[in-house]
Amino acid sequence: MLANVRIVLVNTSLPANIGAAARAMKTMGITSLFLVEPKVFPSAEATSLASGASDVLVNARVVATLEEAVGDCSLVLGTSARSRTIPWPLMDARQAGEAVRMESGTQQVAIVFGREDRGLTNDELQRCNYHVCIPSDDEYGVLNVAAAVQVISYEVRMAHLLAAEQPVPEGQRMPVQFLHWDQEVVPHGDMERFYEHFERMMVDTGFLSPDNPRQLMARARRLFGRVRLDRIEYNMWRGIFTRLQEIAAELSLLKKKPKE
Amino acid sequence: MLANVRIVLVNTSLPANIGAAARAMKTMGITSLFLVEPKVFPSAEATSLASGASDVLVNARVVATLEEAVGDCSLVLGTSARSRTIPWPLMDARQAGEAVRMESGTQQVAIVFGREDRGLTNDELQRCNYHVCIPSDDEYGVLNVAAAVQVISYEVRMAHLLAAEQPVPEGQRMPVQFLHWDQEVVPHGDMERFYEHFERMMVDTGFLSPDNPRQLMARARRLFGRVRLDRIEYNMWRGIFTRLQEIAAELSLLKKKPKE
Repeated sequence: MLANVRIVLVNTSLPANIGAAARAMKTMGITSLFLVEPKVFPSAEATSLASGASDVLVNARVVATLEEAVGDCSLVLGTSARSRTIPWPLMDARQAGEAVRMESGTQQVAIVFGREDRGLTNDELQRCNYHVCIPSDDEYGVLNVAAAVQVISYEVRMAHLLAAEQPVPEGQRMPVQFLHWDQEVVPHGDMERFYEHFERMMVDTGFLSPDNPRQLMARARRLFGRVRLDRIEYNMWRGIFTRLQEIAAELSLLKKKPKE
Repeated sequence: MLANVRIVLVNTSLPANIGAAARAMKTMGITSLFLVEPKVFPSAEATSLASGASDVLVNARVVATLEEAVGDCSLVLGTSARSRTIPWPLMDARQAGEAVRMESGTQQVAIVFGREDRGLTNDELQRCNYHVCIPSDDEYGVLNVAAAVQVISYEVRMAHLLAAEQPVPEGQRMPVQFLHWDQEVVPHGDMERFYEHFERMMVDTGFLSPDNPRQLMARARRLFGRVRLDRIEYNMWRGIFTRLQEIAAELSLLKKKPKE
Protein backbone atom coordinates (compact mmCIF):
# COMPACT_ATOMS: atom_id res chain seq x y z
CA MET A 1 0.00 0.00 0.00
CA LEU A 2 3.02 2.29 0.41
CA ALA A 3 4.78 1.34 -2.82
CA ASN A 4 4.42 4.87 -4.21
CA VAL A 5 6.05 6.52 -1.21
CA ARG A 6 9.80 7.18 -1.10
CA ILE A 7 12.17 8.56 1.50
CA VAL A 8 14.90 10.91 0.18
CA LEU A 9 18.00 11.60 2.31
CA VAL A 10 20.07 14.56 1.12
CA ASN A 11 23.82 14.68 1.64
CA THR A 12 23.82 12.54 4.77
CA SER A 13 27.18 12.56 6.61
CA LEU A 14 26.99 9.55 8.90
CA PRO A 15 26.51 6.06 7.46
CA ALA A 16 24.91 5.03 10.78
CA ASN A 17 22.08 7.47 10.11
CA ILE A 18 21.45 5.99 6.66
CA GLY A 19 21.26 2.52 8.18
CA ALA A 20 18.99 3.60 11.04
CA ALA A 21 16.74 5.48 8.61
CA ALA A 22 16.42 2.36 6.43
CA ARG A 23 15.35 0.36 9.44
CA ALA A 24 12.93 3.06 10.60
CA MET A 25 11.12 3.32 7.27
CA LYS A 26 10.92 -0.43 6.77
CA THR A 27 9.28 -0.97 10.16
CA MET A 28 6.49 1.25 8.83
CA GLY A 29 6.26 -0.56 5.50
CA ILE A 30 8.11 1.98 3.33
CA THR A 31 10.95 0.45 1.32
CA SER A 32 11.91 2.95 -1.39
CA LEU A 33 15.03 4.95 -0.46
CA PHE A 34 16.84 7.60 -2.51
CA LEU A 35 20.22 8.93 -1.39
CA VAL A 36 21.28 12.29 -2.80
CA GLU A 37 25.08 12.61 -2.64
CA PRO A 38 25.65 10.60 0.54
CA LYS A 39 29.10 11.22 2.05
CA VAL A 40 29.78 7.48 2.40
CA PHE A 41 27.76 4.76 0.72
CA PRO A 42 27.61 1.83 0.78
CA SER A 43 29.18 1.18 4.16
CA ALA A 44 29.38 -1.65 6.64
CA GLU A 45 28.20 0.64 9.41
CA ALA A 46 25.00 1.55 7.55
CA THR A 47 24.31 -2.12 6.86
CA SER A 48 24.89 -2.98 10.51
CA LEU A 49 22.51 -0.29 11.77
CA ALA A 50 19.90 -1.29 9.20
CA SER A 51 19.60 -4.65 10.96
CA GLY A 52 16.94 -6.65 9.09
CA ALA A 53 16.38 -3.80 6.64
CA SER A 54 19.56 -4.18 4.63
CA ASP A 55 17.45 -4.95 1.54
CA VAL A 56 16.32 -1.31 1.64
CA LEU A 57 19.98 -0.29 1.36
CA VAL A 58 20.70 -2.78 -1.40
CA ASN A 59 17.81 -1.38 -3.42
CA ALA A 60 18.53 2.27 -2.58
CA ARG A 61 19.12 4.58 -5.53
CA VAL A 62 22.10 6.90 -5.24
CA VAL A 63 21.68 10.10 -7.26
CA ALA A 64 23.61 13.34 -7.71
CA THR A 65 20.82 15.89 -7.31
CA LEU A 66 17.54 16.30 -5.46
CA GLU A 67 15.90 16.77 -8.82
CA GLU A 68 16.78 13.25 -9.92
CA ALA A 69 15.26 11.87 -6.72
CA VAL A 70 11.94 13.67 -6.94
CA GLY A 71 11.49 14.44 -10.66
CA ASP A 72 8.67 11.93 -11.17
CA CYS A 73 6.78 12.81 -7.97
CA SER A 74 3.56 14.76 -7.90
CA LEU A 75 3.93 15.62 -4.24
CA VAL A 76 7.24 16.51 -2.58
CA LEU A 77 7.36 17.24 1.14
CA GLY A 78 10.49 18.77 2.68
CA THR A 79 11.19 18.37 6.38
CA SER A 80 12.35 21.47 8.13
CA ALA A 81 13.11 22.18 11.77
CA ARG A 82 13.06 25.94 11.64
CA SER A 83 10.89 28.48 9.88
CA ARG A 84 12.39 30.16 6.85
CA THR A 85 12.59 33.71 5.65
CA ILE A 86 9.88 33.15 3.07
CA PRO A 87 7.04 31.29 4.76
CA TRP A 88 6.07 28.16 2.92
CA PRO A 89 2.91 26.10 3.13
CA LEU A 90 3.52 24.17 6.32
CA MET A 91 2.15 20.91 7.63
CA ASP A 92 2.78 19.09 10.85
CA ALA A 93 3.77 15.43 10.67
CA ARG A 94 0.21 14.22 11.12
CA GLN A 95 -1.14 16.31 8.29
CA ALA A 96 1.77 15.13 6.17
CA GLY A 97 0.85 11.51 6.85
CA GLU A 98 -2.67 12.18 5.67
CA ALA A 99 -1.50 14.10 2.60
CA VAL A 100 0.87 11.30 1.63
CA ARG A 101 -1.86 8.73 2.08
CA MET A 102 -4.31 10.58 -0.13
CA GLU A 103 -1.78 11.22 -2.87
CA SER A 104 0.09 7.92 -2.90
CA GLY A 105 -2.83 5.82 -4.04
CA THR A 106 -2.24 6.93 -7.60
CA GLN A 107 0.85 9.17 -7.64
CA GLN A 108 4.48 9.12 -6.61
CA VAL A 109 5.25 10.93 -3.36
CA ALA A 110 8.62 11.93 -1.87
CA ILE A 111 9.48 12.96 1.68
CA VAL A 112 12.85 14.71 1.80
CA PHE A 113 15.21 14.87 4.81
CA GLY A 114 18.25 17.16 5.01
CA ARG A 115 21.77 17.12 6.41
CA GLU A 116 22.47 16.24 10.04
CA ASP A 117 23.88 19.67 10.84
CA ARG A 118 21.88 22.14 8.76
CA GLY A 119 18.95 20.39 7.15
CA LEU A 120 17.84 21.32 3.65
CA THR A 121 19.04 24.47 1.91
CA ASN A 122 16.61 27.20 0.96
CA ASP A 123 16.97 26.16 -2.66
CA GLU A 124 16.10 22.56 -1.84
CA LEU A 125 13.16 23.59 0.34
CA GLN A 126 11.79 25.74 -2.41
CA ARG A 127 11.61 22.69 -4.63
CA CYS A 128 9.13 21.14 -2.23
CA ASN A 129 5.37 21.56 -2.39
CA TYR A 130 5.04 21.74 1.36
CA HIS A 131 7.28 21.89 4.36
CA VAL A 132 6.73 19.46 7.16
CA CYS A 133 7.68 20.05 10.76
CA ILE A 134 7.63 17.64 13.65
CA PRO A 135 6.37 19.59 16.66
CA SER A 136 9.24 19.55 19.12
CA ASP A 137 10.53 21.18 22.26
CA ASP A 138 11.13 24.94 21.91
CA GLU A 139 14.58 24.77 23.43
CA TYR A 140 15.75 21.40 22.17
CA GLY A 141 14.09 20.55 18.91
CA VAL A 142 16.83 18.78 17.01
CA LEU A 143 15.65 15.32 16.05
CA ASN A 144 18.20 12.90 14.71
CA VAL A 145 17.54 12.33 11.00
CA ALA A 146 16.64 8.64 11.47
CA ALA A 147 14.31 9.58 14.33
CA ALA A 148 12.61 12.10 12.03
CA VAL A 149 12.25 9.42 9.34
CA GLN A 150 10.71 7.18 12.01
CA VAL A 151 8.10 9.73 13.08
CA ILE A 152 7.05 10.76 9.56
CA SER A 153 6.94 7.16 8.33
CA TYR A 154 4.87 6.27 11.38
CA GLU A 155 2.38 9.02 10.57
CA VAL A 156 2.13 7.85 6.97
CA ARG A 157 1.41 4.33 8.17
CA MET A 158 -1.12 5.51 10.76
CA ALA A 159 -2.96 7.55 8.13
CA HIS A 160 -3.25 4.44 5.94
CA LEU A 161 -4.41 2.25 8.80
CA LEU A 162 -6.98 4.75 10.04
CA ALA A 163 -8.32 5.30 6.55
CA ALA A 164 -8.66 1.56 5.99
CA GLU A 165 -10.51 1.10 9.27
CA GLN A 166 -12.74 4.09 8.62
CA PRO A 167 -12.58 4.99 12.25
CA VAL A 168 -15.72 6.30 13.85
CA PRO A 169 -15.59 9.91 14.99
CA GLU A 170 -13.22 10.31 17.91
CA GLY A 171 -15.99 10.94 20.41
CA GLN A 172 -17.73 7.69 19.59
CA ARG A 173 -14.69 5.50 19.86
CA MET A 174 -15.04 2.63 22.25
CA PRO A 175 -12.87 2.61 25.32
CA VAL A 176 -9.69 0.64 25.02
CA GLN A 177 -10.73 -2.20 27.26
CA PHE A 178 -13.54 -3.21 24.92
CA LEU A 179 -11.15 -4.03 22.11
CA HIS A 180 -8.72 -6.76 21.12
CA TRP A 181 -10.03 -9.36 23.53
CA ASP A 182 -9.88 -13.06 22.79
CA GLN A 183 -12.64 -14.08 25.18
CA GLU A 184 -16.32 -13.32 25.26
CA VAL A 185 -17.21 -10.52 27.67
CA VAL A 186 -19.89 -12.01 29.92
CA PRO A 187 -23.36 -10.55 29.43
CA HIS A 188 -25.22 -8.49 31.95
CA GLY A 189 -27.46 -11.32 33.18
CA ASP A 190 -24.53 -13.48 34.14
CA MET A 191 -23.06 -10.53 35.98
CA GLU A 192 -26.25 -10.30 38.05
CA ARG A 193 -25.73 -13.90 39.17
CA PHE A 194 -22.14 -12.98 39.86
CA TYR A 195 -23.19 -10.14 42.19
CA GLU A 196 -25.72 -12.38 43.96
CA HIS A 197 -23.02 -14.97 44.50
CA PHE A 198 -20.54 -12.36 45.70
CA GLU A 199 -23.09 -10.97 48.15
CA ARG A 200 -23.98 -14.39 49.59
CA MET A 201 -20.29 -15.16 49.99
CA MET A 202 -19.69 -11.86 51.77
CA VAL A 203 -22.55 -12.64 54.16
CA ASP A 204 -21.41 -16.26 54.71
CA THR A 205 -17.89 -15.13 55.57
CA GLY A 206 -19.17 -12.47 57.94
CA PHE A 207 -17.80 -9.48 56.08
CA LEU A 208 -21.23 -8.17 55.14
CA SER A 209 -24.09 -7.82 57.57
CA PRO A 210 -27.50 -7.95 55.82
CA ASP A 211 -28.75 -5.39 58.35
CA ASN A 212 -26.00 -2.96 57.54
CA PRO A 213 -24.86 -3.52 53.96
CA ARG A 214 -23.16 -0.11 53.65
CA GLN A 215 -21.91 0.62 50.14
CA LEU A 216 -20.24 -2.74 49.57
CA MET A 217 -22.42 -4.01 46.75
CA ALA A 218 -22.53 -0.66 45.00
CA ARG A 219 -18.76 -0.50 45.02
CA ALA A 220 -18.48 -4.07 43.78
CA ARG A 221 -20.87 -3.32 40.94
CA ARG A 222 -19.06 -0.18 39.98
CA LEU A 223 -15.73 -1.95 39.95
CA PHE A 224 -16.73 -5.07 38.02
CA GLY A 225 -18.98 -2.98 35.83
CA ARG A 226 -16.17 -0.79 34.62
CA VAL A 227 -13.67 -3.61 34.24
CA ARG A 228 -16.10 -6.00 32.53
CA LEU A 229 -15.13 -9.64 33.02
CA ASP A 230 -14.37 -12.08 30.30
CA ARG A 231 -15.57 -15.67 30.56
CA ILE A 232 -12.42 -17.12 32.06
CA GLU A 233 -12.15 -14.40 34.68
CA TYR A 234 -15.81 -14.82 35.47
CA ASN A 235 -15.46 -18.55 36.06
CA MET A 236 -12.33 -18.00 38.13
CA TRP A 237 -14.09 -15.58 40.47
CA ARG A 238 -17.16 -17.80 40.79
CA GLY A 239 -14.79 -20.59 41.74
CA ILE A 240 -13.09 -18.41 44.33
CA PHE A 241 -16.45 -17.41 45.85
CA THR A 242 -17.52 -21.06 46.07
CA ARG A 243 -14.29 -22.07 47.76
CA LEU A 244 -14.65 -19.22 50.29
CA GLN A 245 -18.23 -20.27 51.04
CA GLU A 246 -17.03 -23.83 51.63
CA ILE A 247 -14.50 -22.84 54.24
CA ALA A 248 -17.06 -20.55 55.90
CA ALA A 249 -19.53 -23.45 56.04
CA GLU A 250 -16.95 -25.81 57.42
CA LEU A 251 -15.99 -23.29 60.09
CA SER A 252 -19.60 -22.74 61.06
CA LEU A 253 -20.10 -26.53 61.36
CA LEU A 254 -17.03 -27.04 63.54
CA LYS A 255 -18.07 -24.19 65.80
CA LYS A 256 -21.49 -25.81 66.39
CA LYS A 257 -20.18 -29.29 67.17
CA PRO A 258 -18.99 -28.73 70.76
CA LYS A 259 -22.55 -27.79 71.77
CA GLU A 260 -24.07 -31.03 70.49
CA MET B 1 3.79 20.21 31.08
CA LEU B 2 5.39 16.78 30.87
CA ALA B 3 7.11 16.84 34.27
CA ASN B 4 5.04 13.89 35.55
CA VAL B 5 5.96 11.65 32.62
CA ARG B 6 8.94 9.33 32.80
CA ILE B 7 10.60 6.98 30.36
CA VAL B 8 11.81 3.68 31.82
CA LEU B 9 14.37 1.59 29.92
CA VAL B 10 14.75 -1.95 31.20
CA ASN B 11 18.05 -3.79 30.95
CA THR B 12 19.28 -1.92 27.87
CA SER B 13 22.38 -3.54 26.32
CA LEU B 14 23.80 -0.83 24.08
CA PRO B 15 24.90 2.51 25.51
CA ALA B 16 24.21 4.10 22.11
CA ASN B 17 20.53 3.27 22.51
CA ILE B 18 20.38 4.91 25.93
CA GLY B 19 21.94 8.05 24.47
CA ALA B 20 19.67 8.09 21.44
CA ALA B 21 16.62 7.53 23.65
CA ALA B 22 17.62 10.47 25.86
CA ARG B 23 17.84 12.69 22.81
CA ALA B 24 14.54 11.38 21.42
CA MET B 25 12.58 12.06 24.61
CA LYS B 26 14.10 15.50 25.15
CA THR B 27 13.15 16.67 21.65
CA MET B 28 9.57 16.01 22.74
CA GLY B 29 9.95 17.77 26.10
CA ILE B 30 10.23 14.68 28.33
CA THR B 31 13.28 14.74 30.60
CA SER B 32 12.75 12.13 33.33
CA LEU B 33 14.64 8.91 32.57
CA PHE B 34 14.86 5.77 34.70
CA LEU B 35 17.30 3.01 33.80
CA VAL B 36 16.60 -0.42 35.25
CA GLU B 37 19.81 -2.43 35.36
CA PRO B 38 21.48 -0.97 32.26
CA LYS B 39 24.35 -3.17 31.01
CA VAL B 40 26.72 -0.19 30.80
CA PHE B 41 26.07 3.22 32.34
CA PRO B 42 27.31 5.89 32.32
CA SER B 43 29.26 5.64 29.09
CA ALA B 44 30.96 8.03 26.70
CA GLU B 45 29.05 6.50 23.79
CA ALA B 46 25.68 7.21 25.38
CA THR B 47 26.71 10.80 26.08
CA SER B 48 27.91 11.23 22.51
CA LEU B 49 24.65 9.93 21.02
CA ALA B 50 22.60 12.06 23.42
CA SER B 51 24.02 15.13 21.70
CA GLY B 52 22.50 18.18 23.42
CA ALA B 53 20.46 15.96 25.75
CA SER B 54 23.29 14.85 28.02
CA ASP B 55 21.52 16.55 30.95
CA VAL B 56 18.85 13.84 30.67
CA LEU B 57 21.58 11.24 31.20
CA VAL B 58 23.18 13.17 34.07
CA ASN B 59 19.83 13.29 35.85
CA ALA B 60 18.82 9.71 34.97
CA ARG B 61 18.03 7.44 37.89
CA VAL B 62 19.61 4.00 37.81
CA VAL B 63 17.60 1.42 39.76
CA ALA B 64 17.80 -2.33 40.31
CA THR B 65 14.19 -3.31 39.64
CA LEU B 66 11.25 -2.20 37.54
CA GLU B 67 9.32 -1.81 40.76
CA GLU B 68 11.64 0.95 41.97
CA ALA B 69 11.14 2.80 38.72
CA VAL B 70 7.34 2.72 38.68
CA GLY B 71 6.29 2.29 42.32
CA ASP B 72 4.84 5.78 42.68
CA CYS B 73 3.07 5.82 39.30
CA SER B 74 -0.68 5.54 38.97
CA LEU B 75 -0.48 4.61 35.30
CA VAL B 76 2.17 2.28 33.90
CA LEU B 77 2.27 1.54 30.18
CA GLY B 78 4.44 -1.28 28.85
CA THR B 79 5.53 -1.33 25.23
CA SER B 80 5.22 -4.68 23.54
CA ALA B 81 5.80 -5.77 19.97
CA ARG B 82 4.07 -9.11 20.08
CA SER B 83 0.87 -10.37 21.57
CA ARG B 84 1.11 -12.51 24.70
CA THR B 85 -0.55 -15.68 25.90
CA ILE B 86 -2.99 -13.77 28.07
CA PRO B 87 -4.12 -10.71 26.14
CA TRP B 88 -3.80 -7.50 28.11
CA PRO B 89 -5.67 -4.24 27.62
CA LEU B 90 -3.97 -2.83 24.57
CA MET B 91 -3.54 0.70 23.22
CA ASP B 92 -1.89 1.92 20.10
CA ALA B 93 0.71 4.67 20.41
CA ARG B 94 -1.83 7.40 19.72
CA GLN B 95 -4.22 6.26 22.39
CA ALA B 96 -1.27 5.96 24.76
CA GLY B 97 -0.30 9.57 24.09
CA GLU B 98 -3.80 10.67 24.95
CA ALA B 99 -3.97 8.50 28.08
CA VAL B 100 -0.61 9.83 29.29
CA ARG B 101 -1.69 13.40 28.66
CA MET B 102 -4.89 13.02 30.63
CA GLU B 103 -3.26 11.26 33.54
CA SER B 104 -0.06 13.25 33.83
CA GLY B 105 -1.72 16.50 34.79
CA THR B 106 -2.02 15.28 38.35
CA GLN B 107 -0.39 11.83 38.57
CA GLN B 108 2.91 10.17 37.83
CA VAL B 109 3.01 8.15 34.62
CA ALA B 110 5.64 5.68 33.37
CA ILE B 111 6.19 4.35 29.88
CA VAL B 112 8.35 1.23 29.97
CA PHE B 113 10.59 -0.05 27.15
CA GLY B 114 12.23 -3.48 27.16
CA ARG B 115 15.46 -5.07 26.05
CA GLU B 116 16.78 -4.70 22.49
CA ASP B 117 16.53 -8.41 21.73
CA ARG B 118 13.47 -9.61 23.60
CA GLY B 119 11.54 -6.65 25.01
CA LEU B 120 9.84 -6.93 28.38
CA THR B 121 9.32 -10.25 30.16
CA ASN B 122 5.83 -11.53 30.86
CA ASP B 123 6.31 -10.71 34.52
CA GLU B 124 7.27 -7.12 33.69
CA LEU B 125 4.37 -6.75 31.27
CA GLN B 126 1.95 -8.01 33.90
CA ARG B 127 2.98 -5.14 36.14
CA CYS B 128 1.66 -2.67 33.58
CA ASN B 129 -1.90 -1.36 33.41
CA TYR B 130 -1.92 -1.36 29.64
CA HIS B 131 0.26 -2.55 26.83
CA VAL B 132 1.16 -0.18 24.06
CA CYS B 133 2.00 -1.20 20.53
CA ILE B 134 3.31 0.89 17.68
CA PRO B 135 1.51 -0.32 14.55
CA SER B 136 4.28 -1.65 12.34
CA ASP B 137 4.91 -3.74 9.27
CA ASP B 138 3.70 -7.33 9.57
CA GLU B 139 6.92 -8.80 8.31
CA TYR B 140 9.44 -6.36 9.73
CA GLY B 141 8.10 -4.76 12.86
CA VAL B 142 11.18 -4.43 15.01
CA LEU B 143 11.66 -0.80 15.96
CA ASN B 144 14.95 0.15 17.53
CA VAL B 145 14.32 1.04 21.20
CA ALA B 146 15.28 4.70 20.74
CA ALA B 147 13.01 4.89 17.69
CA ALA B 148 10.16 3.50 19.79
CA VAL B 149 10.88 6.09 22.50
CA GLN B 150 10.77 8.75 19.77
CA VAL B 151 7.37 7.67 18.45
CA ILE B 152 5.69 7.32 21.84
CA SER B 153 7.18 10.59 23.13
CA TYR B 154 6.01 12.27 19.96
CA GLU B 155 2.47 11.02 20.50
CA VAL B 156 2.51 12.22 24.11
CA ARG B 157 3.60 15.67 22.93
CA MET B 158 1.02 15.73 20.12
CA ALA B 159 -1.74 14.83 22.57
CA HIS B 160 -0.73 17.78 24.74
CA LEU B 161 -0.57 20.16 21.81
CA LEU B 162 -3.88 19.06 20.35
CA ALA B 163 -5.61 19.27 23.72
CA ALA B 164 -4.33 22.81 24.19
CA GLU B 165 -5.46 23.85 20.72
CA GLN B 166 -8.85 22.25 20.50
CA PRO B 167 -10.40 21.53 23.83
CA VAL B 168 -12.74 18.73 22.83
CA PRO B 169 -14.93 17.72 25.77
CA GLU B 170 -12.91 15.25 27.77
CA GLY B 171 -15.77 12.82 28.17
CA GLN B 172 -15.99 12.26 24.45
CA ARG B 173 -12.44 11.17 23.98
CA MET B 174 -11.22 8.55 26.39
CA PRO B 175 -12.28 5.55 28.38
CA VAL B 176 -14.46 6.29 31.33
CA GLN B 177 -12.06 5.05 33.93
CA PHE B 178 -9.66 7.92 33.35
CA LEU B 179 -12.26 10.59 33.96
CA HIS B 180 -14.18 12.40 36.62
CA TRP B 181 -13.07 10.34 39.53
CA ASP B 182 -13.47 11.74 43.00
CA GLN B 183 -10.88 9.51 44.65
CA GLU B 184 -7.14 9.17 44.25
CA VAL B 185 -6.13 6.25 42.04
CA VAL B 186 -3.75 4.16 44.15
CA PRO B 187 -0.17 4.17 42.90
CA HIS B 188 1.64 1.17 41.54
CA GLY B 189 3.63 0.37 44.71
CA ASP B 190 0.45 0.00 46.78
CA MET B 191 -0.95 -2.31 44.13
CA GLU B 192 2.06 -4.59 44.55
CA ARG B 193 1.19 -4.95 48.24
CA PHE B 194 -2.38 -5.59 47.17
CA TYR B 195 -1.30 -8.48 44.91
CA GLU B 196 0.90 -9.93 47.66
CA HIS B 197 -2.02 -9.81 50.07
CA PHE B 198 -4.40 -11.32 47.54
CA GLU B 199 -1.96 -14.14 46.83
CA ARG B 200 -1.42 -14.93 50.51
CA MET B 201 -5.17 -14.96 51.04
CA MET B 202 -5.69 -17.30 48.10
CA VAL B 203 -3.08 -19.66 49.56
CA ASP B 204 -4.51 -19.41 53.11
CA THR B 205 -7.99 -20.24 51.90
CA GLY B 206 -6.75 -23.17 49.84
CA PHE B 207 -7.78 -21.85 46.46
CA LEU B 208 -4.24 -21.38 45.24
CA SER B 209 -1.61 -24.06 45.57
CA PRO B 210 1.90 -22.55 45.60
CA ASP B 211 3.06 -25.64 43.69
CA ASN B 212 0.50 -25.12 40.95
CA PRO B 213 -0.32 -21.44 40.72
CA ARG B 214 -1.74 -21.72 37.20
CA GLN B 215 -2.58 -18.29 35.73
CA LEU B 216 -4.36 -16.98 38.80
CA MET B 217 -2.01 -14.13 39.68
CA ALA B 218 -1.54 -13.08 36.08
CA ARG B 219 -5.29 -12.89 35.66
CA ALA B 220 -5.69 -10.94 38.90
CA ARG B 221 -3.02 -8.46 37.80
CA ARG B 222 -4.62 -8.04 34.44
CA LEU B 223 -8.04 -7.45 35.92
CA PHE B 224 -7.07 -4.99 38.65
CA GLY B 225 -4.53 -3.38 36.34
CA ARG B 226 -7.12 -2.49 33.77
CA VAL B 227 -9.77 -1.41 36.25
CA ARG B 228 -7.38 0.62 38.43
CA LEU B 229 -8.60 0.92 42.02
CA ASP B 230 -9.34 4.08 43.85
CA ARG B 231 -8.40 4.46 47.53
CA ILE B 232 -11.77 3.43 48.96
CA GLU B 233 -12.02 0.34 46.78
CA TYR B 234 -8.46 -0.54 47.64
CA ASN B 235 -9.14 -0.36 51.38
CA MET B 236 -12.35 -2.32 50.96
CA TRP B 237 -10.60 -5.19 49.18
CA ARG B 238 -7.72 -5.25 51.65
CA GLY B 239 -10.37 -5.51 54.39
CA ILE B 240 -12.10 -8.36 52.59
CA PHE B 241 -8.83 -10.24 52.16
CA THR B 242 -8.01 -9.82 55.86
CA ARG B 243 -11.46 -11.09 56.90
CA LEU B 244 -11.11 -14.13 54.63
CA GLN B 245 -7.69 -14.88 56.06
CA GLU B 246 -9.15 -14.69 59.56
CA ILE B 247 -11.80 -17.30 58.88
CA ALA B 248 -9.24 -19.53 57.17
CA ALA B 249 -7.00 -19.24 60.25
CA GLU B 250 -9.88 -19.93 62.59
CA LEU B 251 -10.90 -22.98 60.61
CA SER B 252 -7.37 -24.31 60.55
CA LEU B 253 -7.16 -23.87 64.35
CA LEU B 254 -10.46 -25.67 65.01
CA LYS B 255 -9.47 -28.53 62.74
CA LYS B 256 -6.30 -29.09 64.75
CA LYS B 257 -7.97 -29.06 68.18
CA PRO B 258 -9.61 -32.52 68.19
CA LYS B 259 -6.21 -34.12 67.80
CA GLU B 260 -4.86 -32.41 70.91
